[in-house]
Amino acid sequence: MTELERMGEQAVKAKYALAGLAEEKKNEALFLAADMLKKRRDKILSANREDLEAGRQRGMSAGLLDRLTLNEARIGAMAEGLSQIAGLPDPVGEVLDTFTRPNGLVITKRRVPLGVIGIIYESRPNVTADAFGLCFKAGNAALLKGGKEALSSNRAIEAAIREALEEAGVTPDAIQLVKSSDRAVTNELMRLNRYVDVLIPRGGAGLIRAVVENSTVPVIETGTGNCHVYVDEDADLTMAVNIVKNAKTQRISVCNACESLVVHEKIAGTFLPMLASALQEKQVELRADEAAIRFLPDALPASEADFGTEYLDYILSVKTVGSVKEAIDHINRCSTGHSETIVTRDEAHAEAFLNGVDSACVYLNASTRFTDGFEFGFGAEIGISTQKLHARGPMGLKELTSYKYQIRGNGQIRS
Amino acid sequence: MTELERMGEQAVKAKYALAGLAEEKKNEALFLAADMLKKRRDKILSANREDLEAGRQRGMSAGLLDRLTLNEARIGAMAEGLSQIAGLPDPVGEVLDTFTRPNGLVITKRRVPLGVIGIIYESRPNVTADAFGLCFKAGNAALLKGGKEALSSNRAIEAAIREALEEAGVTPDAIQLVKSSDRAVTNELMRLNRYVDVLIPRGGAGLIRAVVENSTVPVIETGTGNCHVYVDEDADLTMAVNIVKNAKTQRISVCNACESLVVHEKIAGTFLPMLASALQEKQVELRADEAAIRFLPDALPASEADFGTEYLDYILSVKTVGSVKEAIDHINRCSTGHSETIVTRDEAHAEAFLNGVDSACVYLNASTRFTDGFEFGFGAEIGISTQKLHARGPMGLKELTSYKYQIRGNGQIRS
Repeated sequence: MTELERMGEQAVKAKYALAGLAEEKKNEALFLAADMLKKRRDKILSANREDLEAGRQRGMSAGLLDRLTLNEARIGAMAEGLSQIAGLPDPVGEVLDTFTRPNGLVITKRRVPLGVIGIIYESRPNVTADAFGLCFKAGNAALLKGGKEALSSNRAIEAAIREALEEAGVTPDAIQLVKSSDRAVTNELMRLNRYVDVLIPRGGAGLIRAVVENSTVPVIETGTGNCHVYVDEDADLTMAVNIVKNAKTQRISVCNACESLVVHEKIAGTFLPMLASALQEKQVELRADEAAIRFLPDALPASEADFGTEYLDYILSVKTVGSVKEAIDHINRCSTGHSETIVTRDEAHAEAFLNGVDSACVYLNASTRFTDGFEFGFGAEIGISTQKLHARGPMGLKELTSYKYQIRGNGQIRS
Repeated sequence: MTELERMGEQAVKAKYALAGLAEEKKNEALFLAADMLKKRRDKILSANREDLEAGRQRGMSAGLLDRLTLNEARIGAMAEGLSQIAGLPDPVGEVLDTFTRPNGLVITKRRVPLGVIGIIYESRPNVTADAFGLCFKAGNAALLKGGKEALSSNRAIEAAIREALEEAGVTPDAIQLVKSSDRAVTNELMRLNRYVDVLIPRGGAGLIRAVVENSTVPVIETGTGNCHVYVDEDADLTMAVNIVKNAKTQRISVCNACESLVVHEKIAGTFLPMLASALQEKQVELRADEAAIRFLPDALPASEADFGTEYLDYILSVKTVGSVKEAIDHINRCSTGHSETIVTRDEAHAEAFLNGVDSACVYLNASTRFTDGFEFGFGAEIGISTQKLHARGPMGLKELTSYKYQIRGNGQIRS
């Protein structure tokens, strides 16, 4: 039995214990874990300094070092996150449906935890606490594999949370961190079907693709967003400028940021110069197709690859179309199925777009930046699902559950 | 572009067309397809004779030849199946939730088709019509890969259905059969993420394992059932005999048949001889652990492997336990998560079992044989899901859908 299999066995034991845990007990443990992160702050910061020092020696970029960095405020935010999760309603046990069959069988469909959730993530150590909190509140055992560059920090966070769980009288194996940074162990985790019910990768497109391609455990794909704003011929152009500017520049590094503008040819000549001027302040680079570039003297020509690219940068591709139908087709061809918006006053165009675009979140007259657990009112999220199985869009606590059928009879047999 | 990629592209075009199809139109097409199967009966039977002849020449077993065989009655049943699906309510478009956020955004969660569903199956040609019918009614395009031994039959069924779809004015690419029997093409289908939203294997444990292990497309695992009946110390023993006999012998080849009996040691001495005598008529072979074999003189000793085996035969393993807790632990260790039942009059034991057993369907005082779309009142099913993502237990039309969020605003941007 490998070390990971042993952890898998422990996680399975923990999942059975957690499935029956009362909400109050889970909340008590979450509050204790929040406190413990603050109490063990010095240990966590000291472990984090080791990671940062090693990162600097390996020549890690400033951006990566920033993601890796913990400080008092960030530890406070992790603790606050756990307390907030304690405040969310417990989804486990909810009766989703109940009905009686003609033969007298009473069938109850009841919400249950998924079981053991594996999370594979990159350099942000706060994911260790956030992912644990969500998995735990939904009754799941978390098996966490963070980036090797954050291992010391993650170990310190795990240790604090396990200490709190023991204090609460809850199995500490509700959180288990994989300590090996061997790639073979990550591959083993992706094939640990016997113990792991679902894998959720959190990170960049490369990580997610690697997990999808190598896992036999069911995977929920999250987070890549090549999001579009379509400005229709009948749009309020001032509103459209505000929405594109917000969706593109309010925060460039997030999956719900806009990467591509689709514009109706009839208003391109008026709209594009207005937009270019509004985006100048943020120095957004425009990459436009032939029809659009005529109205955008500073733009670069867009290649076909541009329309499939999630820039996560101050860059916007611009595509011209002749109809809402053409806009829908273009978006369905190029998008990652995350979030798209139409700006229009035309109801028929709006409905065609809302129904025809095959993405998790489709907007009318609003910024794509609202695709987010808090903005939807779900609270903290584990990610934004861009696939169609199980969950789509922001995944909160409910999306970390499954269901079972409980069927009560009095001796029924099948004839 | 390969032939399969071309089919994938056609399927994607079809899925957009089908997503917006009115229920009446879908039902009309299903009725026409049912009629056409009967009208083209001679062609289908003649194609089936080719498959059977080839099978006989390759030395196919009588059981496999029977699965492969079509006749007037079986074609009638396929047609009847399509008509029944037309009678089921259309799940697409249902509003699952709607709420308004403080900023005025109105969020509607709406049921939509999954998109393109790939089905990989074995020798039964009726799956071609059944799987198409369910996928189609739920607005999905079906990409079907049947067993090579049934290829002529499947082609004839596909041709009849496509003819009916054209007559109904619906895209015939709602059903596409993969004609190549090259294993490389099956492998390509399992990695066709760009076009296929979900894969559902239908067949034996080997097929399902192969699909789970080789697919990068999300898979729904269905159908393997190592189902248990637990007879508690406080069971009505006559009821228990009836339930075990029904679950084991009413139909041995199905996934919801009982494969293993778990019995409380306190009643083993009374119950096991009663059961053995009731099972004698069907000549059920018993494979029992040490404690049970004392009361079962004709039983063979069970090996550890027996408790993990789905026999699909007149064989039953027997395990003795000292408590309901021990029964739950044994079942969670050995079962495939399909269906399990407890026979007891003790309410606390019943609740412990219903909550503690981690299977899709958990019964009290009833046969496991009720895990079935029709018995649950869902109508025809695509399979019984034994995983926890997306759907669990019998998968009917609703389980062949996803959802999307449609968000209506009036210029909201994120601050």
